[in-house]
Amino acid sequence: MRRTVKILVVWLLLILSGSPLSGAERDPLPSWNDGASKKSIVDFVERVTREGESDYVKPEERIATFDQDWKTKQPFKAVLDRDIKALAALGETGFLKIMAVTHTGITAADFTKIVADWIASARHPRFDRPYTELVYQPMLELLSFLRANGFKTFIVSGGGVEFMRVFTERVYGIPPEQVVGSSGVVRFKLPPDGKPVLLKEGKIDFVDDGPGKPVGINRFIGRRPIFAFGNSDGDQQMLEWTAAGNGARFMGLVHHTDAEREWAYDRKSYVGRLDKAWDEALKRGWTVANMKTEWKKIFSFEP
Amino acid sequence: MRRTVKILVVWLLLILSGSPLSGAERDPLPSWNDGASKKSIVDFVERVTREGESDYVKPEERIATFDQDWKTKQPFKAVLDRDIKALAALGETGFLKIMAVTHTGITAADFTKIVADWIASARHPRFDRPYTELVYQPMLELLSFLRANGFKTFIVSGGGVEFMRVFTERVYGIPPEQVVGSSGVVRFKLPPDGKPVLLKEGKIDFVDDGPGKPVGINRFIGRRPIFAFGNSDGDQQMLEWTAAGNGARFMGLVHHTDAEREWAYDRKSYVGRLDKAWDEALKRGWTVANMKTEWKKIFSFEP
Repeated sequence: MRRTVKILVVWLLLILSGSPLSGAERDPLPSWNDGASKKSIVDFVERVTREGESDYVKPEERIATFDQDWKTKQPFKAVLDRDIKALAALGETGFLKIMAVTHTGITAADFTKIVADWIASARHPRFDRPYTELVYQPMLELLSFLRANGFKTFIVSGGGVEFMRVFTERVYGIPPEQVVGSSGVVRFKLPPDGKPVLLKEGKIDFVDDGPGKPVGINRFIGRRPIFAFGNSDGDQQMLEWTAAGNGARFMGLVHHTDAEREWAYDRKSYVGRLDKAWDEALKRGWTVANMKTEWKKIFSFEP
Repeated sequence: MRRTVKILVVWLLLILSGSPLSGAERDPLPSWNDGASKKSIVDFVERVTREGESDYVKPEERIATFDQDWKTKQPFKAVLDRDIKALAALGETGFLKIMAVTHTGITAADFTKIVADWIASARHPRFDRPYTELVYQPMLELLSFLRANGFKTFIVSGGGVEFMRVFTERVYGIPPEQVVGSSGVVRFKLPPDGKPVLLKEGKIDFVDDGPGKPVGINRFIGRRPIFAFGNSDGDQQMLEWTAAGNGARFMGLVHHTDAEREWAYDRKSYVGRLDKAWDEALKRGWTVANMKTEWKKIFSFEP
């Protein structure tokens, strides 16, 4: 009798999942135009999730890593107010150094509060929107699509890890423990009157950029990704590291080609630089997503 | 019609979950004697998972951290063969230094292989069993119980993170990305002929012990645990950090009191030391699990 009930439930669930309500036939990537990048993503996900086939990857090994760029957007007002070219010229490490020095001696909790306040109030000068709205709709869909297929999604960025963790869960559905980033030295202190704190010292501990990305992946995740997406030379080594594993692999680069809706840059630019990684992508057949032609929508607020 | 089917399914699922097959009434901690520790664990989990009540904690914030001791068991044969007292006298940092220096220049992948080979062949001299069988059955049950209640379980140990990750998934059901530990400096290298590697340098990067534990938790997890279990003074700061958060908290210490089935030690011992953390636990009312009286079974292989 109990078995009959169970079979009945399974049968009913099958009916339900075949119904239009389940969305099984909906396009999981509606903001991507049908094109080479969308096809390569969907093909890859199908290959690694089809049990019994040679490219199948067990769910626990479906690690996907994404760059996330906030380098020109950190809550460092004195710097933000100045010439963005001069700021970019500092590079990731120079910027992290300034952040570290200017936040020496504050607690990790206070730093989180500074970031949260800034995020809540700051608006992007060009788009006049909160920074947390300036996320790529196609990438949000890609993250959801991967998670729906058993992937664990991580951010692997040169940005400060304590900065990013304030908003990644809300904005990307990526919890703090799945964010890998640059970090400063932090010290545990228990004052005589009781409550322990973590104090930020004025030193950089780890720069999660360029060759630092595979190191960060190894240290924080401890598994090699099978899927990685970046958009600049700072992501090249992460993509190389991903490519060097066994079995099916996906390496992708976003190419900023849309000056009207977002930005356009590649080989020589101060906003970001896609130069060597681009050459390697072309040579090795990695996926290069052309924003202008392949993304129907860049931001969710577009009409 | 579709709604009717859904209601029917929900109703059938309710019947099933009420059936003896579901195990809803089974004791989730069968190797724990009914006593103060078991009661405090079960009470805590009930309190934080009951929606709508004041102690309720959202699933994504149910972070649980566990120490894991392998310090006398690492695959460093030249040291393991010597006097264990001399080895212990080095302390965690001294031991890590030896490990780092003796593995300089090898790749992270080769190190993983050395550990895996050692794990597969080594046997504990006293118990004559593989080290991976010498795990506490009550703690395995506790990990499962927490996960069944929406907790995310982490290891936070002074041991080398690359060492532990080889076996934590198989032995504890804890994936590599949920293991926080000590680490050495690693460098990314792409040789001219192609395959990138991560090379271990002869330097310690981070010691995840004592005051390092809250730092490691902050760096790797980015959230404060609400539940933490340790067994020595090296866990004191992790427990203090856990205790200092808002809302319901659980702090536990395993007290090794069973020299017959395992070991007995506390204030003055070379295997481990439970001294200051013990005093604090007694003073602050943390849970202290007495192995001898509270654990029916220590290892799964006991008769």
